[in-house]
Amino acid sequence: MPPLTEPSRTRVALGVSYNGRAYDGWQSQPGGRTVQDHLERALTQFSAQDPVKTLCAGRTDAGVHGLMQVVHFDTPLERAENAWVRGTNSFLPDNIAVQWARHVPGSFHARASARSRRYAYVLLESPVRPSVDAGQVGWVFRPLALEPMVQAAQALVGEHDFTSFRAAQCQAHSPVKHLMRVDIARRGDYWRFEFEASAFLHHMIRNIMGCLIAIGAGNRPAAWMTEVLQARSRDAAAPTFSPDGLYFLGPVYDATFGLPERTPAFDWLP
Amino acid sequence: MPPLTEPSRTRVALGVSYNGRAYDGWQSQPGGRTVQDHLERALTQFSAQDPVKTLCAGRTDAGVHGLMQVVHFDTPLERAENAWVRGTNSFLPDNIAVQWARHVPGSFHARASARSRRYAYVLLESPVRPSVDAGQVGWVFRPLALEPMVQAAQALVGEHDFTSFRAAQCQAHSPVKHLMRVDIARRGDYWRFEFEASAFLHHMIRNIMGCLIAIGAGNRPAAWMTEVLQARSRDAAAPTFSPDGLYFLGPVYDATFGLPERTPAFDWLP
Repeated sequence: MPPLTEPSRTRVALGVSYNGRAYDGWQSQPGGRTVQDHLERALTQFSAQDPVKTLCAGRTDAGVHGLMQVVHFDTPLERAENAWVRGTNSFLPDNIAVQWARHVPGSFHARASARSRRYAYVLLESPVRPSVDAGQVGWVFRPLALEPMVQAAQALVGEHDFTSFRAAQCQAHSPVKHLMRVDIARRGDYWRFEFEASAFLHHMIRNIMGCLIAIGAGNRPAAWMTEVLQARSRDAAAPTFSPDGLYFLGPVYDATFGLPERTPAFDWLP
Repeated sequence: MPPLTEPSRTRVALGVSYNGRAYDGWQSQPGGRTVQDHLERALTQFSAQDPVKTLCAGRTDAGVHGLMQVVHFDTPLERAENAWVRGTNSFLPDNIAVQWARHVPGSFHARASARSRRYAYVLLESPVRPSVDAGQVGWVFRPLALEPMVQAAQALVGEHDFTSFRAAQCQAHSPVKHLMRVDIARRGDYWRFEFEASAFLHHMIRNIMGCLIAIGAGNRPAAWMTEVLQARSRDAAAPTFSPDGLYFLGPVYDATFGLPERTPAFDWLP
């Protein structure tokens, strides 16, 4: 049961977008160069109160981008929702922005209330590495075939022990997650992979991407994905793929919370 | 008549993509921080010869991106086209990349042979500034109306004296250019404006964008564009709009040269 708000405090939820290229990931670190560090400093400056501490829906690694990270925090201040957006943004660097703010009931918890999380991986297939979009797309120089990747992805859908795709430093209580869907689409020379799961293990998508690409490029048959999954060993899978093309699309909450489900940048991805 | 190649030298054309955010524009400067400076240093390193000097199809301002800039240079070296691509890229920063190389006849000239040039302007319409795509899209927080912008843009199509949209430092011989088309489309919260003209004056698109946005936001009527055009005075137009969302899509050459017309990143723009 998530902790409830103190009577004199309001719980506020924020939707936050960021380009992860310049940051040491989401989670606060002593160096202070993470997205959470920047957000909390901006919230603290704007609210001119004791340091504001936030809780997020899903931590992202260094170099991973967020289209709609969601956080919550409790505050004694009474401010209009729009004031939180504009005020906080005035203290944030130009590649991090609060998209929306909502007063939420004390029963809302950015992490615990999330029923699922969505991620997209954008991949450039080209003989030449990315340039205009360097750091914002993954890259593969060998042509990929759609059909074997779709087949391999389907083998992962459902509730499984995803130990084979889990980073050694993963802090999740259980390796068993429910992967609801993997959609694979192509637009010109760009591939877009979209994942939705109850939750993701550390590096899970980047490890799955490494395997999907090995299969799409013809280095492995589609059936190899089932072998990797069943091995329950990190040694069975392909190396962790680049963070560059990974975007946290955001958590999905019960509609009764009335939170926005997307931000403008959703239309900007291929 | 463009100068022809010396008999012992080969003329090479390159298609180059770059993210302009980190650079002082295209054209070489003493500071050495322009895209041309980086490209020529890389070509010189790769060819291990006297400094290579390039001529481009269209110079871009600081902060403006290139999807397919085209340059040519003459070289005594005989290298495969692909070797120019891979060799040069190995000496370039990660946000500049040669996309293709072609041996071209001495009659080819990157600037003089171009029959027209194409640019796109990508604009985010949102109450909140860009973040994930900071520096890569322009921004307007007031909602825009399509119809008046289309009407205003049509008033510019054709051969006109574009003095009203010309920067003071413009070096073009004549302010008369032929604007062939302006296409305006929307995808979600992003607008895309595409321009094709015989050539563009310095700041011409950014000055036109300033006026189109004033009209789209309802600050000016569509007919104002004709007034601005006819005034033949820079004072008549709106302020120069941000370079962030401007992309040089590339020149158009006679098909007989057989040069590629697009690069993968064309599919990445909204």
